[in-house]
Amino acid sequence: MIDLTRYIRDVPDFPKPGIVFKDITPLLADHQALRETIARLVDPFRHKGVEVVAAVESRGFIFGALAAGELQAALVPIRKPGKLPYRTVSQSYELEYGTDTIEVHEDAVRRGQRVLMVDDVLATGGTMAAACRLVRRLGGDILAAAFVIELAFLSGRERIGDCTVHSLIQVK
Amino acid sequence: MIDLTRYIRDVPDFPKPGIVFKDITPLLADHQALRETIARLVDPFRHKGVEVVAAVESRGFIFGALAAGELQAALVPIRKPGKLPYRTVSQSYELEYGTDTIEVHEDAVRRGQRVLMVDDVLATGGTMAAACRLVRRLGGDILAAAFVIELAFLSGRERIGDCTVHSLIQVK
Repeated sequence: MIDLTRYIRDVPDFPKPGIVFKDITPLLADHQALRETIARLVDPFRHKGVEVVAAVESRGFIFGALAAGELQAALVPIRKPGKLPYRTVSQSYELEYGTDTIEVHEDAVRRGQRVLMVDDVLATGGTMAAACRLVRRLGGDILAAAFVIELAFLSGRERIGDCTVHSLIQVK
Repeated sequence: MIDLTRYIRDVPDFPKPGIVFKDITPLLADHQALRETIARLVDPFRHKGVEVVAAVESRGFIFGALAAGELQAALVPIRKPGKLPYRTVSQSYELEYGTDTIEVHEDAVRRGQRVLMVDDVLATGGTMAAACRLVRRLGGDILAAAFVIELAFLSGRERIGDCTVHSLIQVK
């Protein structure tokens, strides 16, 4: 089994001083490591009848697209406001300062469909909590939220407490 | 062969009045159609030794990730300014009004690597022309730029004239 942490680069002071950013581009650059990442991301859900993978813009699109391909599921993009062209439902959520909003097409998920949420990093969980709310408002049945990296010290898992969390790398 | 145009939804007056937006979300929602799209996107390049797929944020990440998976190539994200955490090179380009900029990590492509550029839509070609310039500045050898949809009436093909263009759907 590949040690995936070898493909994550720590970039200090990004996006601001004192923050150590987890750079996933070395992982993207190695197709075998990326393939194994996707396999491990979806493994617990292979026989759970996932119909939809919902992925959060932008890095989430990379892992979500590959996870959907692996599970033969639909891919649903969840985006920043004003990006999706058709009729949308939107959900706001609180940031440290201010609020942010994400959107999904209103026809993206049908009532009762089994959904796997995917993003690259679980940080505070604010975005994923809002994404889960959006999917549930459309009637989706969320099996879990899967992440490559979980910044465990930010306790995002608690903020999306009604969701099973699956993460491959936990940063303490 | 699937008629891919059946999976593209015309959304009138988006993002502004008079523009008919090509909505790819129905294509993303059908895993067989999406799988065939990726196969057709990469088919001309299967035995050309592609080492890197470079994809432009954000929808390009979806097709780029799947194309890289199919070709067993590295995936290189090209992003808006301030998104990539490591050292970057950037390239500005002209829009109808004003300019825009994109960036890539300086270590993303090595000199002489064979690169396939991927995005969802070829419109005016401004972004892709800048993306190609970035990759060439790093020493990449661009085989072609592949798009799901080409808005042929915008003549983007001319703006990236030094690049072979491969598109699956041409909108006249």
